[in-house]
Amino acid sequence: MDSSGDDDRELAKALAAFSVDEPLAAVISSRAYGSGDYPYTDRPKRKLYQKELRELQIELLKLQEWVKSARERIVIVFEGRDAAGKGGTIHRFVQHLNPRYVRVVALDKPTDVESAQWYFQRYVAHLPYRGEIVMFDRSWYNRAVVEPVMGFCAPQQTTQFLDQVPVFEKMLVDDGIRLFKIWLDIGREMQLKRLHERHKDPLKRWKLSPVDLSAPARWGAISTARNAMIEASHTASTPWTVVLANDKMRARLGAIRRVLAQLPYAGRDDKVVGVPDPAIVLDGHRFLD
Amino acid sequence: MDSSGDDDRELAKALAAFSVDEPLAAVISSRAYGSGDYPYTDRPKRKLYQKELRELQIELLKLQEWVKSARERIVIVFEGRDAAGKGGTIHRFVQHLNPRYVRVVALDKPTDVESAQWYFQRYVAHLPYRGEIVMFDRSWYNRAVVEPVMGFCAPQQTTQFLDQVPVFEKMLVDDGIRLFKIWLDIGREMQLKRLHERHKDPLKRWKLSPVDLSAPARWGAISTARNAMIEASHTASTPWTVVLANDKMRARLGAIRRVLAQLPYAGRDDKVVGVPDPAIVLDGHRFLD
Amino acid sequence: MDSSGDDDRELAKALAAFSVDEPLAAVISSRAYGSGDYPYTDRPKRKLYQKELRELQIELLKLQEWVKSARERIVIVFEGRDAAGKGGTIHRFVQHLNPRYVRVVALDKPTDVESAQWYFQRYVAHLPYRGEIVMFDRSWYNRAVVEPVMGFCAPQQTTQFLDQVPVFEKMLVDDGIRLFKIWLDIGREMQLKRLHERHKDPLKRWKLSPVDLSAPARWGAISTARNAMIEASHTASTPWTVVLANDKMRARLGAIRRVLAQLPYAGRDDKVVGVPDPAIVLDGHRFLD
Amino acid sequence: MDSSGDDDRELAKALAAFSVDEPLAAVISSRAYGSGDYPYTDRPKRKLYQKELRELQIELLKLQEWVKSARERIVIVFEGRDAAGKGGTIHRFVQHLNPRYVRVVALDKPTDVESAQWYFQRYVAHLPYRGEIVMFDRSWYNRAVVEPVMGFCAPQQTTQFLDQVPVFEKMLVDDGIRLFKIWLDIGREMQLKRLHERHKDPLKRWKLSPVDLSAPARWGAISTARNAMIEASHTASTPWTVVLANDKMRARLGAIRRVLAQLPYAGRDDKVVGVPDPAIVLDGHRFLD
Ligand SMILES: Nc1ncnc2c1ncn2[C@@H]1O[C@H](COP(=O)(O)OP(=O)(O)O)[C@@H](O)[C@H]1O
Ligand SMILES: Nc1ncnc2c1ncn2[C@@H]1O[C@H](COP(=O)(O)OP(=O)(O)O)[C@@H](O)[C@H]1O
Ligand SMILES: Nc1ncnc2c1ncn2[C@@H]1O[C@H](COP(=O)(O)OP(=O)(O)O)[C@@H](O)[C@H]1O
Ligand SMILES: Nc1ncnc2c1ncn2[C@@H]1O[C@H](COP(=O)(O)O)[C@@H](O)[C@H]1O
Repeated sequence: MDSSGDDDRELAKALAAFSVDEPLAAVISSRAYGSGDYPYTDRPKRKLYQKELRELQIELLKLQEWVKSARERIVIVFEGRDAAGKGGTIHRFVQHLNPRYVRVVALDKPTDVESAQWYFQRYVAHLPYRGEIVMFDRSWYNRAVVEPVMGFCAPQQTTQFLDQVPVFEKMLVDDGIRLFKIWLDIGREMQLKRLHERHKDPLKRWKLSPVDLSAPARWGAISTARNAMIEASHTASTPWTVVLANDKMRARLGAIRRVLAQLPYAGRDDKVVGVPDPAIVLDGHRFLD
Repeated sequence: MDSSGDDDRELAKALAAFSVDEPLAAVISSRAYGSGDYPYTDRPKRKLYQKELRELQIELLKLQEWVKSARERIVIVFEGRDAAGKGGTIHRFVQHLNPRYVRVVALDKPTDVESAQWYFQRYVAHLPYRGEIVMFDRSWYNRAVVEPVMGFCAPQQTTQFLDQVPVFEKMLVDDGIRLFKIWLDIGREMQLKRLHERHKDPLKRWKLSPVDLSAPARWGAISTARNAMIEASHTASTPWTVVLANDKMRARLGAIRRVLAQLPYAGRDDKVVGVPDPAIVLDGHRFLD
Repeated sequence: MDSSGDDDRELAKALAAFSVDEPLAAVISSRAYGSGDYPYTDRPKRKLYQKELRELQIELLKLQEWVKSARERIVIVFEGRDAAGKGGTIHRFVQHLNPRYVRVVALDKPTDVESAQWYFQRYVAHLPYRGEIVMFDRSWYNRAVVEPVMGFCAPQQTTQFLDQVPVFEKMLVDDGIRLFKIWLDIGREMQLKRLHERHKDPLKRWKLSPVDLSAPARWGAISTARNAMIEASHTASTPWTVVLANDKMRARLGAIRRVLAQLPYAGRDDKVVGVPDPAIVLDGHRFLD
Repeated sequence: MDSSGDDDRELAKALAAFSVDEPLAAVISSRAYGSGDYPYTDRPKRKLYQKELRELQIELLKLQEWVKSARERIVIVFEGRDAAGKGGTIHRFVQHLNPRYVRVVALDKPTDVESAQWYFQRYVAHLPYRGEIVMFDRSWYNRAVVEPVMGFCAPQQTTQFLDQVPVFEKMLVDDGIRLFKIWLDIGREMQLKRLHERHKDPLKRWKLSPVDLSAPARWGAISTARNAMIEASHTASTPWTVVLANDKMRARLGAIRRVLAQLPYAGRDDKVVGVPDPAIVLDGHRFLD
């Protein structure tokens, strides 16, 4: 008890003092894996992960075949804090898929012309046609989290967005688009650890934008915005899936399973697909509770 | 009475026998102006029309100025049967406006890629940005009238469209786009007269597409589809305006007045704008009654 | 002689004193029609013009048919000083053509993204596909005349453009695109008269951009740039046509005839098309002499 | 001598009998690495490769910085037979770069609209703007190799293309675009080995398109087309680089070095960049000799 109180104080101090330019406090590093009430303490075996990933990627190829031949349209939206692992997860989805049928859309901040249009307009331009899978690395949900937290939009724009987004998505879904929305969730210490690592690695440092660097200071604001977003936009036909993502391997397998398990593609191997691990793959509403 | 009965029989015969390749029956020609219960019998003076049009076009220039400086967005949708006068009306709107701020969008039938997308997607791409006026010469409403009547879409696609369109338009309007929807309505004999004239005029014959040529035979089906469309998509914030258009001059002035009268642009000359003639410019719901 | 010397002095004074805000000097007005060595003094009859125009427009419809069925591609570039009549001429070309096959491209000044691209890139995006006619109201030649004269580009950009443009156009022509380049040429007094009229007419005043208003002061610079442009870009396969355009009616008929006379469309009525009036429709090189 | 004669006969038989559905002949497998006169027999150490790759990727990040800040434009075209390793090489280039500044363009076969346009038009749409790097995974050179060999275009279209391409590229280069053209070259046995492996691997089998499967039978036709392409389009300012690519690791390092070594980006570490291995990175003309 006492000692845990000490630990907590030490952690609070370390969090307050965090800077990518300083060495990472040991207390942050040691708590990262379990941060944010992550339910596991043990790491999965890499070999096993690789085997499972490979099998799931073979399923993704069958899915792609089905999308092409049944002329389906799939949209998968990835959201999450900086360093939550969006890019890496998307990479595992698309790694062996055919770039002619699977597109990753990562839009830059809006140009002047785009800012002068209907907010959804530039995203609509990237929706899939029949036979395509489109993965959004960040999406229209910028207006729910990044933009208000960073002050890139006015509060009423977020309010209006949260009003419109269920209606917008319902139209897509009614039109036959299969929409998945995945929030990758990490704990506070894990975010700091990853930001710190990125800063140290010359191959990753560029990923640290000003938005990222201010993320730790906005931890609470982002949590609040995330919850409001899920609250407003989680519906029966357009649900959010929250994937606890402190462990990248588990998160990737979980996200892929979540998508595969919902789709009636031909030749699905249910032994491989299985059920997404309920300890880390949560329905949006359940996550909020 | 008797004679009117005779006339009616003669008219019925003439309508049934109509062909662009035959001379136009006198009874059609003589009844054209008053057809479809058109409320006027006298023609307006061309000189007066030209004077009023010119004054209204000066108002449109002020409107354009306002749209630019207040960074407004305006969408004006024109629908109506073939030969109702959509093109000519649009031309009077844009005649003296700056093509860099005012666009006319007349989309061809969807390409393969477009057919494979969300139905609204190709229209969304043409929505105005701030500072622009966009006029649609036919629009997403193809799915409500032309497509079902011509058999270009399945009935459930029209049903779904009529479900979605109020939601879609509400999003645009909530986003600040000012949306006008104008149906130009002509009587049956007037349509035949105009189609006949087009066919005779080598400069206009090309306008007679197969869709047009089948229009007379589908008169009733189009009326039904039009009514269902207005019924489903006339809402308080996205109302339809029906303009009785047997007389082109009155229709053009009426349509321009209708738009100008709704918009708070700087320097509006209310003496010029006045009130759209209630005998021919009708609220969608009132038209249905 | 003497009196002509007086006149010339009076004219020089009037030209120097010209302002759209002052009444137009009588000497400018009276000399406008004949300015720039325009070869005619009499005006054509409007009725005859209308008859000929109509007949030529019927030919244009045949041309359009041919373009569609033979899957041809046509590009017509219109250049000329402000108020030379580009817009009006283009309007007579397209007036009765089908907007689904004939496009008018009038690009705004380049956006930031466009300025950061290959200069020709944004124009290439608008080139016709088979079956289309595209009319450019101003074109890539902005870099030869407007941009250097107004200081919107660096001199070496114009030099490079003049180097590249024959090569660029040769590629298009070798690819089967039929390219016409028409410079509408007006005299100095005629330009002033038209600018003055525009300024007085509320329906046309907006057309007077800052670029236009500075045009009179840059008369000589534009002449020089025009000549350098023609010199550098008139080749056997991509010739310039200069149309003397003080008289709008003659200019329109001449430009349409010029295009029709070159094209082997089916059903050409050579009596109607005839030969463009050699007094006002000049080959680019001949104009320079 | 004799035995080598035997070997050759055995190889010829194996080549003729090749099918992805049969086990791979041992003679093909054993000769793959050295096929096509590949100059090495030993494999590089993976650890060393990884270290060098990492260092070069850090250089690529500096390059990206320079491209952004100096507003440069870079185009890297990758061509080569099926299974030559284009995708994998591109992946190593972009792996740690920012997708907002680096685009990979892999165009599908032309749509109907695209086929009806200027051949280069759809490629021009993807050229970089200032601050961007664009990598083409196959490019306009389809018309030089894939299309004629597969019969997707007429011979005179290839002839015309080879005429135009130096002119087209010169325009880009004169405009300031830095253009690299890399042909990855593999030996015949290596191609068969890789195609065979792909076919066996469920994660890669989809990559085997009909075009790929017919590649072995068209080995000679492709060699001829490649040589004609290099002959026609290798110029001083738009040279081809041929990278002998039987060894993927060496090929990737070689291609990256080739690009880095040509560009004056800030902070270049010449010890890392070094000189591309002249045994496998060849100037196009030298390759032909
Ligand atoms: N000024 C801005 N206005 C609106 N959105 C912005 C602005 N600046 C950045 N963004 C958006 O914020 C998101 C997060 O930015 P950043 O952390 O730099 O990128 P990422 O995390 O995707 O690598 C991106 O989607 C970016 O487009
Ligand atoms: N096969 C089709 N599928 C869907 N829409 C079509 C089809 N053919 C024509 N249309 C649409 O029907 C409308 C009416 O066609 P038409 O009468 O030819 O043109 P307009 O009346 O606009 O000149 C147009 O908007 C056209 O795009
Ligand atoms: N800052 C600028 N940079 C480059 N081009 C410009 C700039 N401003 C105007 N232009 C171009 O100069 C041309 C002449 O402009 P303007 O006289 O305003 O239009 P127009 O004569 O076509 O009505 C147009 O093509 C316009 O796009
Ligand atoms: N019918 C076709 N016409 C033109 N190019 C094609 C056609 N089919 C395939 N290609 C191109 O050939 C190249 C190799 O095809 P693949 O190996 O199938 O990816 C790609 O760049 C394709 O776009």
